[in-house]
Amino acid sequence: MFPRKLTRQVISDPDYPVVETKAGKLRGLVVEGSFIFRGIKYAKAERFHLPKPVEPWEGIKEAIIYGPVCPELNTPIAHDEYNVPHYHYCQDEDCQYINVWTQHLDKNAKRPVMVWIHGGGWATGSSIELYAYDGEEISAWGDVVFVSLNHRLNVIGYTDFGKYGDEYKYSGNAGLADLVMALEWVRDNIEAFGGDPNNVTIMGQSGGGAKVRSLFNTPAADGLYHKAIIQSGAHKGDGDGTLEESQYLAERILAQLNIAPENVHEVEKVPYYKLVRAAVAAQEDVKAKFGHTFFMGATKDDDYYLGQPVLYGWRPEVRNVPLIIGTCLGEQNNNFALEPISKALDDWTEEEKMEQLKKRFGDKTDAVVAAFKKAYPGRNIAGALFIGDYYRIGAYEIIARRIKDGCAPTYNYLLTLMAPLNKGTVPWHNMEEAYVFHNANYLEASYIPGVTEELQDIMTGAWVAYARTGDPNHPGMPVWHPEDGEKVGTMIFDRDVHMVYDHDKELMDVLGGGRAQPSFRRRDAGILGGGPRQSL
Amino acid sequence: MFPRKLTRQVISDPDYPVVETKAGKLRGLVVEGSFIFRGIKYAKAERFHLPKPVEPWEGIKEAIIYGPVCPELNTPIAHDEYNVPHYHYCQDEDCQYINVWTQHLDKNAKRPVMVWIHGGGWATGSSIELYAYDGEEISAWGDVVFVSLNHRLNVIGYTDFGKYGDEYKYSGNAGLADLVMALEWVRDNIEAFGGDPNNVTIMGQSGGGAKVRSLFNTPAADGLYHKAIIQSGAHKGDGDGTLEESQYLAERILAQLNIAPENVHEVEKVPYYKLVRAAVAAQEDVKAKFGHTFFMGATKDDDYYLGQPVLYGWRPEVRNVPLIIGTCLGEQNNNFALEPISKALDDWTEEEKMEQLKKRFGDKTDAVVAAFKKAYPGRNIAGALFIGDYYRIGAYEIIARRIKDGCAPTYNYLLTLMAPLNKGTVPWHNMEEAYVFHNANYLEASYIPGVTEELQDIMTGAWVAYARTGDPNHPGMPVWHPEDGEKVGTMIFDRDVHMVYDHDKELMDVLGGGRAQPSFRRRDAGILGGGPRQSL
Repeated sequence: MFPRKLTRQVISDPDYPVVETKAGKLRGLVVEGSFIFRGIKYAKAERFHLPKPVEPWEGIKEAIIYGPVCPELNTPIAHDEYNVPHYHYCQDEDCQYINVWTQHLDKNAKRPVMVWIHGGGWATGSSIELYAYDGEEISAWGDVVFVSLNHRLNVIGYTDFGKYGDEYKYSGNAGLADLVMALEWVRDNIEAFGGDPNNVTIMGQSGGGAKVRSLFNTPAADGLYHKAIIQSGAHKGDGDGTLEESQYLAERILAQLNIAPENVHEVEKVPYYKLVRAAVAAQEDVKAKFGHTFFMGATKDDDYYLGQPVLYGWRPEVRNVPLIIGTCLGEQNNNFALEPISKALDDWTEEEKMEQLKKRFGDKTDAVVAAFKKAYPGRNIAGALFIGDYYRIGAYEIIARRIKDGCAPTYNYLLTLMAPLNKGTVPWHNMEEAYVFHNANYLEASYIPGVTEELQDIMTGAWVAYARTGDPNHPGMPVWHPEDGEKVGTMIFDRDVHMVYDHDKELMDVLGGGRAQPSFRRRDAGILGGGPRQSL
Repeated sequence: MFPRKLTRQVISDPDYPVVETKAGKLRGLVVEGSFIFRGIKYAKAERFHLPKPVEPWEGIKEAIIYGPVCPELNTPIAHDEYNVPHYHYCQDEDCQYINVWTQHLDKNAKRPVMVWIHGGGWATGSSIELYAYDGEEISAWGDVVFVSLNHRLNVIGYTDFGKYGDEYKYSGNAGLADLVMALEWVRDNIEAFGGDPNNVTIMGQSGGGAKVRSLFNTPAADGLYHKAIIQSGAHKGDGDGTLEESQYLAERILAQLNIAPENVHEVEKVPYYKLVRAAVAAQEDVKAKFGHTFFMGATKDDDYYLGQPVLYGWRPEVRNVPLIIGTCLGEQNNNFALEPISKALDDWTEEEKMEQLKKRFGDKTDAVVAAFKKAYPGRNIAGALFIGDYYRIGAYEIIARRIKDGCAPTYNYLLTLMAPLNKGTVPWHNMEEAYVFHNANYLEASYIPGVTEELQDIMTGAWVAYARTGDPNHPGMPVWHPEDGEKVGTMIFDRDVHMVYDHDKELMDVLGGGRAQPSFRRRDAGILGGGPRQSL
């Protein structure tokens, strides 16, 4: 994706490299020895309809540039643009495109396949939104087939018009259906790219992790993946829309657009930005009716999608899928940072630290500080300001439920490495991505000479080993123990990589419940309350 | 701009590196030894108003991410996305942002300043739209201060509402006024970034070259620059809108928006995309009235902007500014390519070549082929398909006019290096940019190991030498002769860098007039006819 200083001539000849897929031939690139195929159309879909396979073609199609990405409700400069550099690309509803990086174009190579599902909640982002997502390094370094893809998002991905006609059945999960279709494309075609269709790891971060979690309870995806990784993507509590909410959203969108129910087809032709304005207004209507902010995401319809497994359980069909799940120490770094940070964290006075901590934690401040000191002795307590309990508690909840359901092993990690930005910044939401894709030495905000190279060898090595065998352990790192049905250990990724057990249990308890109290709360039971869900 | 494999820790501390500008302090970055300041606000402007200086501020502002870019009428995937990779960024009318790359933060360093004005016609693009534009390599390699900037474009840059009130005076040249304001910012502040405000080179490619050309006849810019470079930016014939056209566009925009003239202020508040729809419709109205497609660009109002110097002459105030002007052999490569190219050019049969050539050149084909063979003996005649006469003839016209007006020396070049894509691709519109910015070894489509490194040392070396002294010659290349008032030589940039004289005169004559017939045609004289101008 991103230009790098080249040492070899890139090859993209009319007849090489060419791969034959089920639908037809594709011509890609050879970049520094890696084969790259960008922007392969894996499905086509009318707005609010289920995706269909692409039509077969004659001759050779080019796969040398990325396909368009799903339109976003809006695309402002991200608050974390510096530490998480974005690559924005052209947006179009015709967005079912997949990218492949591989070292072999040999059907017998059968390398492990890693399928990256991008984040940005269920509303924004793309397979190439972050520089960290580039698959060239991990494919070459780990000899794996790396796959990433675009799929439908926000209003066009998750609004249920099902009550207006069978053709719109599952329109409340069109985005999930795109993911399933992409996994079917992998099953049917990845062998030609040197991949093993029987060894597919699905992985995602933030919203992408939430999508991985939801795929566990999407029966259409059963059997299409064999391992899973959720990076900072399992927030605590619920997060799905209900069928009732999604259908009410559809109803209100039609009303906002002055489209009578019998003319529902017109909603397929409305210009996207007009649809967005209607959807944003309709969102307010849903909020007024249901008492909480409604985010467009997977619709729990108990048919296509059965709801979050942490609430409704891991089904027998997917219990044998192992899981890596983990977070970064400072997930909320950007959400709570004092910007611009005019003073390095280490230069803050005790008073300044306490003033800021009290702003976030109020009455809990003393308890948080005490628990933080116990969990992270020697660390600057200002780090507690940015602590990522929202995702870490979510991870604990998932692990507890998987233990209860008798699932395959679950591995937990926590990235605690301080980044050099501002003379020391707590690792943020997204920071681990560059490390697991072996791209961390490309990123300004997190690169620490020597340390980064070593840590990304360890982390990418673990992800690749896991994709290969289901076990992330490799000779270059201490033994990573999964939960053993009782004890949950955490692999700490930092200058000193090591296992800890329950080191932050007290801190998580103070912040809202740790693994001892997995909260199988259901919003419809009224326990979680009606507050807004975090916009991922 | 683009992530590169880092070898040193990037520094962006709360108090370093910090530069004090006239308006306040800015904190940037140190990347691999270069100082970088991104997204510095150089002006603010209400829609359709002239830009104003920014308000002074207290404390230190961050300049570590790019500022938003001017909204485009639309942003589709470019037809040349593979060979000219784009970096799309967040769009906002608040777009007056400038970026600086430098090796010194010392007022006494006084290094030459190169100000890059981006292309994309007058309607699209940004300071960071192309990867080739990244200034880190040229700044470090050449020890120059490299500056690039965003400015207003399209409907918000070039629609004249002047007849509705003095506050809108010059709104037909708001984009040019932004450029002038940016050059004033350079004059007032660049010393603090190690630059010499008395040695400023303005340079641009395509639309950016056209803007450089127009700045020559923008009196407000006089004295703010001392050298100029136009890369593939001086197309033949005219290209400006007239005041009458621009004012009629404004009139029709108000009509399309149902805004009465007395409520003209409302046009400042219309959402941008609504304004765009009105403007696109209004463009059709202008076409209907004036008989030719109207593109939003510099408005020849004979006040702020005096029209193209190739038509109206170089004024005494700017005759002492030297110029480099040049083109690529295959400017129209993408416009006329048979896509997808399923067969390498060298594998085409003679019949296939002639068939395609006849499609482009019709009755002229035999003459074109004969002249092409004379100009480029040994080259595949299929190359003539992509020949860049549109810009090359424009360059000849400018040189002739500068000779006539007694201007400082003008240097001419032509990039003829075949790129490896498709087993051989004629160099395209934009290809020279990566070579003059020392970024060509980052770009997949054009990188040739060894050849690229050598040629970019020569080309970047020439651009830097020119910025330093006004003479592009340096020890690493053959002597580059400027026109001498009579003879026009061309420096050929290829595997063999060498001077030629009139080598393609006959070819240009066949294609529409070479330098022997500089066409001082005026559209208003009816000679050029009413055909659409090329959308840059």
